[in-house]
Amino acid sequence: MPPLIGVLGGMGPLAGVDLMQKMIRATAARSDQEQIPVLCWNVPQVPDRQRALAGAGTSPLPAMLAGIAVLNAAGATRIVIACNTAHYWFEQLAAASAAPLIHIADATLAALPPGACVDTAVGLLATRGTIDADLYQSRLAARGVSCIVNTEEEFERYFTPGCYAVKQGHIDAGAALLQQAAQALLTRGARQLLLACTEVPLALAHIASPLLALSIDPTWALAQECARYWHSAAQFE
Amino acid sequence: MPPLIGVLGGMGPLAGVDLMQKMIRATAARSDQEQIPVLCWNVPQVPDRQRALAGAGTSPLPAMLAGIAVLNAAGATRIVIACNTAHYWFEQLAAASAAPLIHIADATLAALPPGACVDTAVGLLATRGTIDADLYQSRLAARGVSCIVNTEEEFERYFTPGCYAVKQGHIDAGAALLQQAAQALLTRGARQLLLACTEVPLALAHIASPLLALSIDPTWALAQECARYWHSAAQFE
Repeated sequence: MPPLIGVLGGMGPLAGVDLMQKMIRATAARSDQEQIPVLCWNVPQVPDRQRALAGAGTSPLPAMLAGIAVLNAAGATRIVIACNTAHYWFEQLAAASAAPLIHIADATLAALPPGACVDTAVGLLATRGTIDADLYQSRLAARGVSCIVNTEEEFERYFTPGCYAVKQGHIDAGAALLQQAAQALLTRGARQLLLACTEVPLALAHIASPLLALSIDPTWALAQECARYWHSAAQFE
Repeated sequence: MPPLIGVLGGMGPLAGVDLMQKMIRATAARSDQEQIPVLCWNVPQVPDRQRALAGAGTSPLPAMLAGIAVLNAAGATRIVIACNTAHYWFEQLAAASAAPLIHIADATLAALPPGACVDTAVGLLATRGTIDADLYQSRLAARGVSCIVNTEEEFERYFTPGCYAVKQGHIDAGAALLQQAAQALLTRGARQLLLACTEVPLALAHIASPLLALSIDPTWALAQECARYWHSAAQFE
């Protein structure tokens, strides 16, 4: 079966597009034909992940499983999820997929240079669901890196409304709020930022935020992992 | 069957991403769940369209038919093609598809205000294949609009290398060449530009070209047509 990256996207739709764009950038290609082949299921009707994890909405799992089925039926050989929060259901999605799934936090840790961030604190910009699911903290702790996360008040004032503003297409306004959430982490001692919600790196890029210079972008790490897979699997002439 | 826009993309891959981004922008949505559902087959291994039409390469039709089959099997209810040149094979693709195809030139003409560009000349920035296939000229002539196209020399010096530079990821360099191709049309009397190759609007946007102010963007027209379909077909609460 020829290599094909399946993207489970739509959460939100701009995050799927951002990942596709980064995959193209991560793939050194001399022609269209050497570029990375992708099938992106960008179906935003998946029920809200944050609300479901807060106990306030229906589970997104059946809709995501439908997406995984589409990607497998179409011949995907690897599948990635363009949403950190959705990785809460990673094991169930992986169990239902013939194609192996690449985990965004594994890709992020693989991209981190050895010794990076040790003995400093990383500001983890992520949804409450991503934090509660421990997607990043244990992986970072195993490398000697500790995390600072937003307080409840910062979530309510900055992070959550910022995230939903991006989803509503108010990217500038959303980015300004997300920058305030990031600034709060820096004020409390973070030296670097981990942009562990896929709306965050695209929003900060949209306003050319200076905070990007301090940031680790899991979407970019995932894109690089996909490009590595494509280069190892493809047979160029 | 719930509405689902299938995108036949990858020609080149950035053009598929540009169309997806424009579909999101064209869809007024208050949440992820109201956004347009898209399945994008962005597989750049489709043989080169320009070379095939110049008699110098294998036909892209079998690969494109494989993409159409994937989109139909996944339940696409409308299909669009993120490449003007590929519309040379539109009838054959439409005949093989259960889901109706939306033609990019029909969408472009539908978006043109009545009386627009009448008695002036429009500069048609397009591949030789798109021009030879008469995707736009007859449709425009029926509205009283005439076209100016690049000369052979302008194709060789500006348009074709500009287009391939974008495909190789050299977007700034490609955009500069495509601007020169556009400038040649303006010098010869064009008052507006029709960016009828999907690499062109994304390249000009990348360098924030002042020529965008004079330009009609078929990718944007196609995105708007998709958003209209989604709004008419979807049942929001």
